[in-house]
Amino acid sequence: MINVIGYHTTKFGEQWNKSLFDLISEAIHGVIKEMKIDKEEINAVFFGNMLAGILENNVHGGSKISEILKTHVPMYRVEAACASGGLAFNLACQYLNANKNSTVLVVGGEKMTDYPTPKVITALSAAASGEEQEAGLTFPGLYAMLARIYLHTYGYTEEHLAAVSVKNHFHGTFNDKAQFQKEISIEDVLKSPYIADPLKVLDASPISDGASAILVTNNRHIAHRIDKKMTVLSSQAATDSISLSGRAYLDRLDSTVQAGNKAFSDAKLSPIDISVAEVHDCFSIAEILAMEDLGFFKKGEGGERMKNYETMFGKTNGLVVNTSGGLKASGHPVGATGVKQIGEVFLQLTQQAGKRQVKKIKYGLTHNVGGSGGTAVVNIFSS
Amino acid sequence: MINVIGYHTTKFGEQWNKSLFDLISEAIHGVIKEMKIDKEEINAVFFGNMLAGILENNVHGGSKISEILKTHVPMYRVEAACASGGLAFNLACQYLNANKNSTVLVVGGEKMTDYPTPKVITALSAAASGEEQEAGLTFPGLYAMLARIYLHTYGYTEEHLAAVSVKNHFHGTFNDKAQFQKEISIEDVLKSPYIADPLKVLDASPISDGASAILVTNNRHIAHRIDKKMTVLSSQAATDSISLSGRAYLDRLDSTVQAGNKAFSDAKLSPIDISVAEVHDCFSIAEILAMEDLGFFKKGEGGERMKNYETMFGKTNGLVVNTSGGLKASGHPVGATGVKQIGEVFLQLTQQAGKRQVKKIKYGLTHNVGGSGGTAVVNIFSS
Repeated sequence: MINVIGYHTTKFGEQWNKSLFDLISEAIHGVIKEMKIDKEEINAVFFGNMLAGILENNVHGGSKISEILKTHVPMYRVEAACASGGLAFNLACQYLNANKNSTVLVVGGEKMTDYPTPKVITALSAAASGEEQEAGLTFPGLYAMLARIYLHTYGYTEEHLAAVSVKNHFHGTFNDKAQFQKEISIEDVLKSPYIADPLKVLDASPISDGASAILVTNNRHIAHRIDKKMTVLSSQAATDSISLSGRAYLDRLDSTVQAGNKAFSDAKLSPIDISVAEVHDCFSIAEILAMEDLGFFKKGEGGERMKNYETMFGKTNGLVVNTSGGLKASGHPVGATGVKQIGEVFLQLTQQAGKRQVKKIKYGLTHNVGGSGGTAVVNIFSS
Repeated sequence: MINVIGYHTTKFGEQWNKSLFDLISEAIHGVIKEMKIDKEEINAVFFGNMLAGILENNVHGGSKISEILKTHVPMYRVEAACASGGLAFNLACQYLNANKNSTVLVVGGEKMTDYPTPKVITALSAAASGEEQEAGLTFPGLYAMLARIYLHTYGYTEEHLAAVSVKNHFHGTFNDKAQFQKEISIEDVLKSPYIADPLKVLDASPISDGASAILVTNNRHIAHRIDKKMTVLSSQAATDSISLSGRAYLDRLDSTVQAGNKAFSDAKLSPIDISVAEVHDCFSIAEILAMEDLGFFKKGEGGERMKNYETMFGKTNGLVVNTSGGLKASGHPVGATGVKQIGEVFLQLTQQAGKRQVKKIKYGLTHNVGGSGGTAVVNIFSS
């Protein structure tokens, strides 16, 4: 049995006084100290990071974490654009299934705010296909195309998209690690400037710095001595053609559908069983697609149900989505996001989520996407 | 039992008419076609690449391979500088140990010759520590420091280093996929210009384009229908402080010592059992250190034994090293190198190495290093 036994995250946001590896060091030392784990008990490290190579000529991060931990254990840097953190966790689970009595550290981090925004947007576009990059398509542009198709096909408006951001900003007010901790209104979203029609600034997750770390173990002795833990029921990854032009459908992300179906089947659960989920809302449209692709909503229902705030904290006895504030309000340091999502579900399932604690919960899910759906990772956990 | 069942590589060298993913596609389709594997039989892909993010704003390669293969299976991009290919294989073995009856593709590739050399050298330095980069230390500079310490400590000269390149260029003449297929002399090496004293141009591996792919399986039905295969006895990775200033010793790479000891212990073999090895000769000094660190030579003997050409093809009944030509003559497209090393041992152990076939062999070893020793991967195979 694989357990997540600890979580520590830096604050997400603008952290101009800290380097990437300062943030990573803070997350790693935080979780090791809080869990009273001896670093000699860590058998391997999985590290999610997307942009350090492009932005600061900084790769080979595994070896740099070896310098922080002062150990010689294997360190694996994993990269799948914005799904780097989730995929690092997925590989950590493979590692644990292959190695008995082991404990691994999964850490994700990104340093994005030191650079001019156009440079960061161009760097993020490195996850898109060469053809899409050459056509001048940035990520906002790619998701705007998906949004336009969705709104047109199912008869929704930009107000339906805006409700996602309103909900996630509301959740962010309860999370002191979130980049944005203030409420916004539908009007605020609708009045914000367009970045790629129909998406506006307040439909989009921000540029962020931050790092998050979790400890994962299948060592019974270690799991036994730790009170607060959650069990991994399934971790699944799937891929799709990165180019939108190569896709069978444009009103869904097939990688999410595939990873989600496998995860529910493997965990022997249904969407109805999940009480808390962190889904990949890099743009408002992405959360709507995710809710449908994961089977929480029927295809085409997402806009309506989102506008009813059915998944908002305090408004439902059912599933609450993105209690951390999601990528939108919590922030999106891309390599950290997939790890933070797991950390948030860990806090919820172990009753450590404070003001945003969802009551009576047993199962949680995380969903992390790379690029415009080229990679998706879905994990299911139980308390 | 994990078997390597197929190998295909592009030619290494200057391939200005092909993009990175053209090369990767060529390697992937080559191995699938030759092995008559249906791509539906591949359960996951492990992809080693270091530089595409920095050099061509191109990351999320897993998803781009999904586009080539037109499948939805998980794709993992792994990066550990020049050990990216070896570490991708190491993770593939973890994956297979966690998943029965599976077959995975391990592919590494790099496109380096389209860019001005200073840009490539700077990009390669991304694997070094921030402090080392700020001090202006490039990879030749870091290995030159290691070479100077080694020559001084054990009383050797630049001629001892040069013998490594002479041997590996001789081997390259038998490999039609090698970047350089011509012999060089000790005098050629000694007369070549210094790049970082005491290392000269002909002590250094070149800048190269290329991609290599192998198929690895623990599916008995698939292994059964394939004649030529080798068995993985052990795959081990270890790390070390990337900064030389953080190391306990500078006349060895501790990551190699650690990974090598674990691999021999796990495989229940000794260095004397190995007949063919591909070791990481990014610079001539690196092969000498590797031979000592892996236990083939005693510490300090390397210079002398190398100058006696004890590991040269045709000159020994014992261990032959770098029959492919090594990084020096075969070329060093960094993400591909670790995969090509395994492919070369595969060709040797399955008696497909043609003019460079080593006789009477049972066991082979590969050794792949990231940066100046921050990561090392050692694999041991049997026929």
